[in-house]
Amino acid sequence: MQADPIITLLTDFGTRDAYVGIMKGVILKIAPTARLVDLSHEVPPQAVTSAALLLSSSVRYFAVNTVHLAVVDPGVGSARAPVLVVTDRGFLVGPDNGLLHPAAETMGVREVRRLENDAYFLRPVSQTFHGRDIFAPVAAHLAAGVPPKAFGPTLADLRPLALPEPVVRAGSICGQVIHVDVFGNLVTNISADLLAAFAREKVSVSIGHVADIQVVRAYAEAPEGAVVAIVGSWNMLEVAVRNGHAASSLRASAGAPVTVKTERREAD
Amino acid sequence: MQADPIITLLTDFGTRDAYVGIMKGVILKIAPTARLVDLSHEVPPQAVTSAALLLSSSVRYFAVNTVHLAVVDPGVGSARAPVLVVTDRGFLVGPDNGLLHPAAETMGVREVRRLENDAYFLRPVSQTFHGRDIFAPVAAHLAAGVPPKAFGPTLADLRPLALPEPVVRAGSICGQVIHVDVFGNLVTNISADLLAAFAREKVSVSIGHVADIQVVRAYAEAPEGAVVAIVGSWNMLEVAVRNGHAASSLRASAGAPVTVKTERREAD
Amino acid sequence: MQADPIITLLTDFGTRDAYVGIMKGVILKIAPTARLVDLSHEVPPQAVTSAALLLSSSVRYFAVNTVHLAVVDPGVGSARAPVLVVTDRGFLVGPDNGLLHPAAETMGVREVRRLENDAYFLRPVSQTFHGRDIFAPVAAHLAAGVPPKAFGPTLADLRPLALPEPVVRAGSICGQVIHVDVFGNLVTNISADLLAAFAREKVSVSIGHVADIQVVRAYAEAPEGAVVAIVGSWNMLEVAVRNGHAASSLRASAGAPVTVKTERREAD
Repeated sequence: MQADPIITLLTDFGTRDAYVGIMKGVILKIAPTARLVDLSHEVPPQAVTSAALLLSSSVRYFAVNTVHLAVVDPGVGSARAPVLVVTDRGFLVGPDNGLLHPAAETMGVREVRRLENDAYFLRPVSQTFHGRDIFAPVAAHLAAGVPPKAFGPTLADLRPLALPEPVVRAGSICGQVIHVDVFGNLVTNISADLLAAFAREKVSVSIGHVADIQVVRAYAEAPEGAVVAIVGSWNMLEVAVRNGHAASSLRASAGAPVTVKTERREAD
Repeated sequence: MQADPIITLLTDFGTRDAYVGIMKGVILKIAPTARLVDLSHEVPPQAVTSAALLLSSSVRYFAVNTVHLAVVDPGVGSARAPVLVVTDRGFLVGPDNGLLHPAAETMGVREVRRLENDAYFLRPVSQTFHGRDIFAPVAAHLAAGVPPKAFGPTLADLRPLALPEPVVRAGSICGQVIHVDVFGNLVTNISADLLAAFAREKVSVSIGHVADIQVVRAYAEAPEGAVVAIVGSWNMLEVAVRNGHAASSLRASAGAPVTVKTERREAD
Repeated sequence: MQADPIITLLTDFGTRDAYVGIMKGVILKIAPTARLVDLSHEVPPQAVTSAALLLSSSVRYFAVNTVHLAVVDPGVGSARAPVLVVTDRGFLVGPDNGLLHPAAETMGVREVRRLENDAYFLRPVSQTFHGRDIFAPVAAHLAAGVPPKAFGPTLADLRPLALPEPVVRAGSICGQVIHVDVFGNLVTNISADLLAAFAREKVSVSIGHVADIQVVRAYAEAPEGAVVAIVGSWNMLEVAVRNGHAASSLRASAGAPVTVKTERREAD
C-alpha cells in the first residue's frame, strides 16, 4: 500500500484569518488523502529570508516525495515566476523569489518548472492570493500524481537568495545571528561542520559585550542562568541562556555579530 | 473509494488551552477517518460577527459535503438552540446565534434542525462547553453517516445576523471596514460584484482623511508604501498599503467608513 | 478495518518556529497513517506543571490506545529519563520530570519503561531536541505497532509532580487558581467531586477582596459582567466574569487563593 502523500505548508499568513484553512480546503478537494503538516504560519510578514532558513532547516526530516508548499510572496501579482522544483528528496512549490533556494540546494535540484498551465489553477486566478489560486492547487495535483512536466516549461535556475555567510580566518569565525527562536535562543549562521575543525575545549564565543562564552554539549552542563554556546536544534551554533531567554538578556536579535575564537585542533 | 469526510473547525477558543484538541479527540473517537481542518481559533472572544464573516468567506473553497463546525457561543447554557444546517454544499453545525447565517445563505439552505437527540451528545452535557459535548460529537456522527433527521426536529429558520450593508447611491457607495487581516489590510463590505457596475478607471476610494485612493488590480502596480484599493482575497474591496500595514498607517479598524465615488460605466 | 492510530502533541515549542512541524515530519516517516492532534504548543516555556494539568484534563476525551506525546523538558540533555508509560487507556511518551504523572494517574498505569533502545531513535541524538530525536520517533514506532518492551527496561515509578492540593475543613475548602484560560476564566484545583459534598445553594466563593461569589450552573444564569463561580470545562470550580475576563477584572493569576465556604448538605 502506498502511503498518503504529505504536503507541508509554510506561510506568513498567520492563523487568525482563514487563509491557511482555505488553502487546505482547496488542497483536500483535489487530493483528498493528503496529510497536511504546518511548518509555520507565523513568519514575519513578507520575511522571505526567515522563511527560507526555516524551510531549509526542516526539509531533511520529511519523507522522500513530500511536497513542500511555501508562500511568502511580497511580489504577488508581479512578474516573479510561480515555480515547482523537483529534487532528489521531494518537491518545492512557491514563488521564485529566493524562498525556495536554500532548501532546494540541500535537496538536490533536478529541474525547475515555471507554473503556467492554468488547468491546474483555481480559476479565476486572483492578483492577491496565489497561495490559494496557484500554489495550493498545484501542490495538490502534484501530490495526487500529476507529473511535473504537466505544469509548465523548465527554467534554467531558481533565483538565489543572498544569505549572510560567516567569514572564516585562521583562529576565528565571524558570523551573525540569523534567527531568534521561541526560547530566545540566538541561532547563528555558524554551522556544526564549520566548528568541527576546532577543538571544542579551545573555543570561546563572544556576542556584543559578552565574551568568553563557554561551548557546552548540553544545556544541563551549565548552571541556571549561564550564557552558553551550543550546537542546537538547527545544527548551527546557538547562544543561549540556560533556562532563560538569551535574546532578552543579551538584547540581541537577527543580524547581531557573533565571533568564535579558536585554536586549530592539533590532533584528533 | 469514498474520500474521508472533512470537518472544519472555527472557534474563539485560542490554541493555548487544549479545548480545540479535546474537541478533535471527541471527533476522532466517533469518526476516526475524518480529516480535520482549522479555519481559525483566534476569533476575538465571543465575536460572533467576525466569525460569521470568516466562515461565509471560506465555505466555498471546500469540497461538497464538508461539515463546518463553528463555536463562538456567548450564550452557552442559555436558551439559544444548538443547530445543524443542511445545505446544497455541505453542513453547518453550531449555536443558532447568527454565526451560521451568512454562510448558510451562500450555501443554499435545505433544512435547519435543532439538536435534541442526546444519544449523539457526550454525556453528561456540561453547561459551559457545548463545543465538546454537543457540537463536536454531532459533527462527527454526521461525518460518519448519521442522517440529519436523527439529530432533532426541523426549525423554520436560522436566526439572522445583522451585518452592516453598504449604501449604494448614484455615483457613490458608502461602506465600512468589516475585518482587518494579518497584513493590516482593511477588508470592506463592498463586494467585487457591487464594484463591477462601475469602470475601475473612474473610481476613487476614500477612508478617513485619505481620499483619491487609486484602485489597482495587483499590489505590484503600486510603489512601496502607497495606499491602494484592491479587490482582495475575500473578493471584497480592501484598502491596503503596498508591503505595509494599512490599519496602522491609516489608524483604521473595523467599522471605519469607506466611500467609493464612481461614474457609471457607459458601455461595457 | 483498524482505525488509524492517533498521536497527540503537547509542547512549549510555540508554532512560530518549525520545531513542531519537524516532529510531525519525523512521525509520519515512521507511521504514515497516524492522525496527529495538537493539544497545545503554547505552554509557557518550561512550565512543566501547566503542561501536566493540561494533559491530565485532556486524555479522557481521546480514543483508547491514543499515544500522547508531551515535551516540556527543561532538563533536556541531563540525567532525567526519557520514558514511555503504558496505561489502561493509551500511552504517554515524554521526559520523566513530572509532566506525565497526573495524566498517568488518571489513566491507570500498567508499566513505565525507560527509553534506551536507540534503534528507535533518530540518530545521531542531539543534546538539545529530544522531542525530534527520541520522543517523536518512539511515539511513531509505538503507534506503528512496536511493542512497549522493545523500547527499554521497566522503571519502578514515574517521578511524581507536587501539585497544590486544596485544604478541606469542616465548612470550607481552601484552594487556589491553577490555570487562567483564554477567556480569562480562573480554573481552580477544587474539583466538582469535592464540591458535590455540599449543597450548591449554600456555598459562597471568595477570591482576593471579592467575597460572596454566587455559584451558578451556566454563565447565562448571571447578568453580563457579574463575577460567578461555576464548574467549568475542566470539571473544576472556576471563577469567571459573564462575557468578561475574570483574570483582568480581578487581577488574579495562577496561585491566587480561592476559598469556598459551605454548609454540609443535610439531605439530598
